[in-house]
Amino acid sequence: MAAALPRSCVEPGSDVGLPGFGSDGVRLRCQAGIGQYESRERVFVSQSEERQNLLEQRYGQANVPAGLIWNERIQGLLEHRSVRAFLPDPLPAGSLETMVAAAQSASTSSGLNQWSVVAVTDPQVKAKAAALTVSETFGIGSTFIEQAPAFLLWVADLSRSHSIATEAGTGTEVVDYLDSFLMASIDAAVAAQNAVVAAEALGLGVVYIGAARNKADEMAQLLELPPHSFVAFGMVVGSPDPAQPTQIRPRPPQALVLHHDRYSAQQSMDNVEAYEPVLRDFLESSGSTVRTWREMVAFSTSSMDYMDGRQNLRETLHSRGFQLR
Amino acid sequence: MAAALPRSCVEPGSDVGLPGFGSDGVRLRCQAGIGQYESRERVFVSQSEERQNLLEQRYGQANVPAGLIWNERIQGLLEHRSVRAFLPDPLPAGSLETMVAAAQSASTSSGLNQWSVVAVTDPQVKAKAAALTVSETFGIGSTFIEQAPAFLLWVADLSRSHSIATEAGTGTEVVDYLDSFLMASIDAAVAAQNAVVAAEALGLGVVYIGAARNKADEMAQLLELPPHSFVAFGMVVGSPDPAQPTQIRPRPPQALVLHHDRYSAQQSMDNVEAYEPVLRDFLESSGSTVRTWREMVAFSTSSMDYMDGRQNLRETLHSRGFQLR
Repeated sequence: MAAALPRSCVEPGSDVGLPGFGSDGVRLRCQAGIGQYESRERVFVSQSEERQNLLEQRYGQANVPAGLIWNERIQGLLEHRSVRAFLPDPLPAGSLETMVAAAQSASTSSGLNQWSVVAVTDPQVKAKAAALTVSETFGIGSTFIEQAPAFLLWVADLSRSHSIATEAGTGTEVVDYLDSFLMASIDAAVAAQNAVVAAEALGLGVVYIGAARNKADEMAQLLELPPHSFVAFGMVVGSPDPAQPTQIRPRPPQALVLHHDRYSAQQSMDNVEAYEPVLRDFLESSGSTVRTWREMVAFSTSSMDYMDGRQNLRETLHSRGFQLR
Repeated sequence: MAAALPRSCVEPGSDVGLPGFGSDGVRLRCQAGIGQYESRERVFVSQSEERQNLLEQRYGQANVPAGLIWNERIQGLLEHRSVRAFLPDPLPAGSLETMVAAAQSASTSSGLNQWSVVAVTDPQVKAKAAALTVSETFGIGSTFIEQAPAFLLWVADLSRSHSIATEAGTGTEVVDYLDSFLMASIDAAVAAQNAVVAAEALGLGVVYIGAARNKADEMAQLLELPPHSFVAFGMVVGSPDPAQPTQIRPRPPQALVLHHDRYSAQQSMDNVEAYEPVLRDFLESSGSTVRTWREMVAFSTSSMDYMDGRQNLRETLHSRGFQLR
């Protein structure tokens, strides 16, 4: 029976002292010290350990935030890790459409639906798209894209709005502004993240590919995108290869990103040091090259090798009809 | 016992003919015609109706996609609706930190964590921030922001990277490119959408506020943002007012946004007509002004009233250190 208990019920005496929400949306509060709940308590201890373990992977032992509320859906979000090793199995029937339904269910600015997604599963097109993401400098990148069954290219898409307004004869001036470019890009990202959550809820693995912008012009041509649209980012999806499991990459302390009422640069920067040992432990245990976070950030901020073609984005966008006024 | 059954189990004979996934991640396949499952089948019929009802709200009866995979987490995503009427209750303790943990668990480009969030709960700051989102032209917008307990301003934040690289003496050239601005904005959006999913999993309601960019310069000053950062969008969060329930706003057919291997503008535009009656039914039943989607899109694409200050975004960004090269 234990497996049927709601996983979201908060155990008494933990540092998570708030009522959770049952998986059916009903508030639950667990009772301590009552005989009939003994079996529940045993389950909760194990869940508490699982939760603590997950939070330590996410933040490092010293930086775990206190007082989080927990349920199955929250746990699903916190379990995210980017997958870069896939089985060649095709996507399960219905999973792409389920991801798109989730993506469409996300908010969209002013109901305009200014995004699209091109799901590339044809091996030849996928190989070409993957090749466009390969790092010019480092020569890495495309193998796992070719292995995976699907490469989704998420499009910030003002082309429909432009077409509709042109047909209506109302003018298209708004499309020419930087804000419209940003709005479509944000809407594509919000939609895509819902697709990630859906994919992971189906047991699939996902990784974003920002390098889909490295050769933005060629990528748009390959996918035959219309003017006023471009690939904002890619996303590989498939069944994770169980032989190559992925670790959760830890994040900085919450206080590095979370501010109250006003931004505090001091508070943010004060938390960099607390992140360094957590990141170092992760890099060491995952066999990666050990660098400090400061070193990684400084490299990304100063190196044209890091940009890897993305310095041409503005030029590509101009040629595709974005004026970015 | 019925309530403890996994909601993700797919009933036999439905149009969703695939195995679902249990809430514990284990595949389940339900057995039909076996006496001991009778009570399960009864539950599944009702769940099937609930699912069909939800999909019809999302897509309209004629445009429901076939063959979706279903489980509790998928349902949670598809149940999203933007909430614009809140109880004044403060956020439950731990809910903001849970949203931030979910946001941080999302992918972040190159591990750079180039986003921040300012959680405004101080009534005076909140009133000022709300006032900056009011439509100049239409005079609407801020009341429910003031009513809600929290207004989160999501920041595309290159300031930390700039500071770290400056301290390291490595140069900051990459920050000057349009791609860096886009990368930080996408990362903020991806993080924010995970926060939305978390908030809704906790029973809270949320709405994005793109109008937080209407007076981008004043908003940055109010929140004391450092150079190389700006508010990409806002988000109101709180307990939905049960006296003012919100309907799910329907979306266009999947074929309007989903393309296979190559983009087809023809296919996309062919699906506009199928959306119009669905949107009309929604607008009528929710007491909104009835306009066609084409009219809404053409208005948004041609009207400087719609831009409402966001046409100044580029100028504001320049003054804040973004060169957008």
